[in-house]
Amino acid sequence: MTTASDHEGRASALIDFILGNIPLARDMQLRLHGYDGERLAFAAPLPPNVNDKGCAFGGSLVSLMTLCGWGLVELGLRERGEDCDVFVADSRVDYLAPVWEDFRTVATLAAESDWAAFLASLHSRGKARIEVRCEVPQADGTAAATLQARFVAKRRA
Amino acid sequence: MTTASDHEGRASALIDFILGNIPLARDMQLRLHGYDGERLAFAAPLPPNVNDKGCAFGGSLVSLMTLCGWGLVELGLRERGEDCDVFVADSRVDYLAPVWEDFRTVATLAAESDWAAFLASLHSRGKARIEVRCEVPQADGTAAATLQARFVAKRRA
Repeated sequence: MTTASDHEGRASALIDFILGNIPLARDMQLRLHGYDGERLAFAAPLPPNVNDKGCAFGGSLVSLMTLCGWGLVELGLRERGEDCDVFVADSRVDYLAPVWEDFRTVATLAAESDWAAFLASLHSRGKARIEVRCEVPQADGTAAATLQARFVAKRRA
Repeated sequence: MTTASDHEGRASALIDFILGNIPLARDMQLRLHGYDGERLAFAAPLPPNVNDKGCAFGGSLVSLMTLCGWGLVELGLRERGEDCDVFVADSRVDYLAPVWEDFRTVATLAAESDWAAFLASLHSRGKARIEVRCEVPQADGTAAATLQARFVAKRRA
């Protein structure tokens, strides 16, 4: 059985990997906010991610959402014993409201995606696509930004 | 008459503004590659923008393309005597090939957009949308990534 602390431990290891290998993630001061096996959340402080207007830079919002979506797929695969390279293929981003404070991103599978179909395709073809939804939640429950992205996983030789 | 050096001078001033006000743009080591009044190009070195695979981080590519698109709209408005706040509203990004070296982004208006209609809407409503296309060109002429984004300009009070 996978426990909550197993999930958090794997997510912490992934954050260490990201911070050790992606300089821009260090510059953004990305950190883990939470992971329960279905939802992955990253956080970042406003100051290193600010724009000329004093709110969050769109590039920081989309970078954090993309990394969070990528992390969800990476963790989901590792927890299922799969060793894959995962790439973002495309994304659609909506910037809905300015973000004036430290922020976080939350990634889940998109409504039309599921792990079973993704793994079946990966097993039969060695490669598969999965769609992830990510958002930057605000205090009132609405999203300040959303991303819907497709990721490709390829089994390592 | 606006000369080539007028365009470059305005674009250089915009780069200084970006580097002075957006920490992540400094971290990315963004610089001006060229501007002729219709096409704006930014460049960035690979090392600060690398990912765990040794190629360009998707967040860096989308950030540079988004900034380049924003810069094109900002410069076009300033050259036409307009004082506006410009925001990105939404974007569609396609990641087509990995980028293994220093890279640049080139922004132009999207085929369905033109300055005349944008300015007419801005004059009548104080607010207007314009669509920009941006890409990361490769040596063979194809794009490693493309972005199509809508920007909103609002006249400053």
